[in-house]
Amino acid sequence: MFAPVYLDYNATTPLEPAVLEAMLPWLSQQFGNASSRHEYGRAARRAIDEARSKVASAIGAHSSEVVFTSGGSEANNLFIKGAAACMKPGLLAVSAIEHPCVIKPSEQLVRRGWRLQKLAVDSNGRVDAQNYQTVLTQKPKLVSVMIANNETGVLQDIETLAAQARATGAWFHTDAVQAVGKVAVDFRALNAAGVHALTLSAHKIGGPKGAAALVLDKRVELEPLIAGGGHERGLRSGTENVAAIVGFGVACELAVQQLATAAPHLTALRGLLEKGLRAMEATLFSASAERLPNTVYFALPKVDGETLVGQLDRAGFALASGAACSSANPEPSHVLRAMGVAPELARGAVRISLGSASTVGQVNEFLNTLQITLSKLQRLTAIAI
Amino acid sequence: MFAPVYLDYNATTPLEPAVLEAMLPWLSQQFGNASSRHEYGRAARRAIDEARSKVASAIGAHSSEVVFTSGGSEANNLFIKGAAACMKPGLLAVSAIEHPCVIKPSEQLVRRGWRLQKLAVDSNGRVDAQNYQTVLTQKPKLVSVMIANNETGVLQDIETLAAQARATGAWFHTDAVQAVGKVAVDFRALNAAGVHALTLSAHKIGGPKGAAALVLDKRVELEPLIAGGGHERGLRSGTENVAAIVGFGVACELAVQQLATAAPHLTALRGLLEKGLRAMEATLFSASAERLPNTVYFALPKVDGETLVGQLDRAGFALASGAACSSANPEPSHVLRAMGVAPELARGAVRISLGSASTVGQVNEFLNTLQITLSKLQRLTAIAI
Repeated sequence: MFAPVYLDYNATTPLEPAVLEAMLPWLSQQFGNASSRHEYGRAARRAIDEARSKVASAIGAHSSEVVFTSGGSEANNLFIKGAAACMKPGLLAVSAIEHPCVIKPSEQLVRRGWRLQKLAVDSNGRVDAQNYQTVLTQKPKLVSVMIANNETGVLQDIETLAAQARATGAWFHTDAVQAVGKVAVDFRALNAAGVHALTLSAHKIGGPKGAAALVLDKRVELEPLIAGGGHERGLRSGTENVAAIVGFGVACELAVQQLATAAPHLTALRGLLEKGLRAMEATLFSASAERLPNTVYFALPKVDGETLVGQLDRAGFALASGAACSSANPEPSHVLRAMGVAPELARGAVRISLGSASTVGQVNEFLNTLQITLSKLQRLTAIAI
Repeated sequence: MFAPVYLDYNATTPLEPAVLEAMLPWLSQQFGNASSRHEYGRAARRAIDEARSKVASAIGAHSSEVVFTSGGSEANNLFIKGAAACMKPGLLAVSAIEHPCVIKPSEQLVRRGWRLQKLAVDSNGRVDAQNYQTVLTQKPKLVSVMIANNETGVLQDIETLAAQARATGAWFHTDAVQAVGKVAVDFRALNAAGVHALTLSAHKIGGPKGAAALVLDKRVELEPLIAGGGHERGLRSGTENVAAIVGFGVACELAVQQLATAAPHLTALRGLLEKGLRAMEATLFSASAERLPNTVYFALPKVDGETLVGQLDRAGFALASGAACSSANPEPSHVLRAMGVAPELARGAVRISLGSASTVGQVNEFLNTLQITLSKLQRLTAIAI
């Protein structure tokens, strides 16, 4: 039976059973194209409208501000490239620890005449206030800083950053893919502070892969990445993935309902994990910064992260080394590099990200297995020397 | 119970039961991110590899030529904008009857310095050979002509068009979204003739919404629309929608298996429909051109298409007026306009598109209901006069 202990919720999450149940009718009898002007089509349209309203209310936005996309990467690309296409080239500022799906489209803009400034972070992975002020004096037109980092879990003070950027007239975007469902996210409050766009994704919060959203202040003009039939107010054409969108709506609803109980549960498990890791002389990255309750990012002395993750995988524990999402192309983590972590320590980086189904038993079992694996690896190293 | 007779298969199709069955494990226990380097991730990666091989073999392509996207609109935009981004602006030629998701990105390129030439079609909706030759003398860099039109079902002689374009050095793309599963499509043969890229979509062939592919000759350089983690050989980043991709693979496999029996079944039903429609003095668009076996596009004397489709919807039949996909924005069909159909006749356009589950009984029932609806509408018109 296929059931290792899953400790990689920042990479993706299992579907909540209620989400799958809500999706199934849209994968069987109710299969219409939401643009069709007959009963199958109208039913699909109503389901999308209802899901849009659920997604919006989960993050304190208005339905009309929600633009559905196929994923978080698409939503981030849509904002960065879509907003830039409506402006004369200028300065774009993104934090050095953004996900590649913010950094890469930003780099593409450099070929279109934009200047790209990566915002420095301190040793904890927080945006460096002084560097940020300096960049703002150069009047960026677009700024993007994530709420929570996928590797470290570190939270940024987005309201303050956005409020400071406001004076320059920049459009301010935040990638909230890792934050939603783990900490409270309120687009209305963020928007009042100066955030104009926010990305969230279904499969990070118990919803399906294939649905996400860019939540957008309507004053922001965007050129669509995908042009065509004019869906999503002309900002994202293509037949809507009705089942995935319906699942996204339910997942948002559940995430908000469960937040109050999930956060203390995750914080307690994280405490247990960190205590165990410290006893093994682990370095805990970003330990003194405000972080997501579910994320622990660490390195053990003289242990390669990839090797450790491989050993733990064989022992029945699923977790990530370095950055999971770009591990198609494994390089030392750009997040740790930006934090000034020494390369030999960064090579040891391992991420545990917990979720709603994680238990004290699993955490204790994991710590035991880690201790055994560690002794084995250290014995091998001793023999090799 | 929600079950009108569905006669709108060109808009979308119901999921084949075997497709849903294949998808379900990836919506429950096997939920991994295919980029994760643990057992959940590897299982997802294997499933995607297997689906890629099924999609490729269904259309005579190699697995390494298949780039998965979230939909046909994305795949068409990826080719048009992605290829253009790697070239100096020049001439782009697309047929006047392309889907909006080819025409709109082409229009976006005009703002980037490209010239756009729409290829004329004759009164049957076939690309006009003489106009095509004239455009080719202007050496287009990109050409896109669909295999089968979504409204009329008309088939183009893509091999000949591609072979003629070859001499100009253009990259030739074909939208095969409506063709696959209804007529044989062989990318290897098309590629040998001079086709460099082809789009197909899962939800048009009994697969799920949320998966499609751009099949691409590897000599074509593309800039990704969605940049990030480097998925799909760097051409389309974003966490793969594993379940939808798995379903796409199975749908392709079934579509090819069923083609030999489906085509004569659909041709027979179409004949029955057309006989009945002619008896009601309908104009059958593109009647003398080679067409998809499942599509009938017609207008009845002095009857508005939207009105008729609305009446038939209430009577329990789901079909489309004008262009279904862009009916979020209902305008007279650009396809009929390009064919030189008079606006008052075009306003009457109604499309029936049949599928695997369509039966003789449904067609006869539809014709009876249409006759009754027609008499009612004509009586109302008589009273109004």
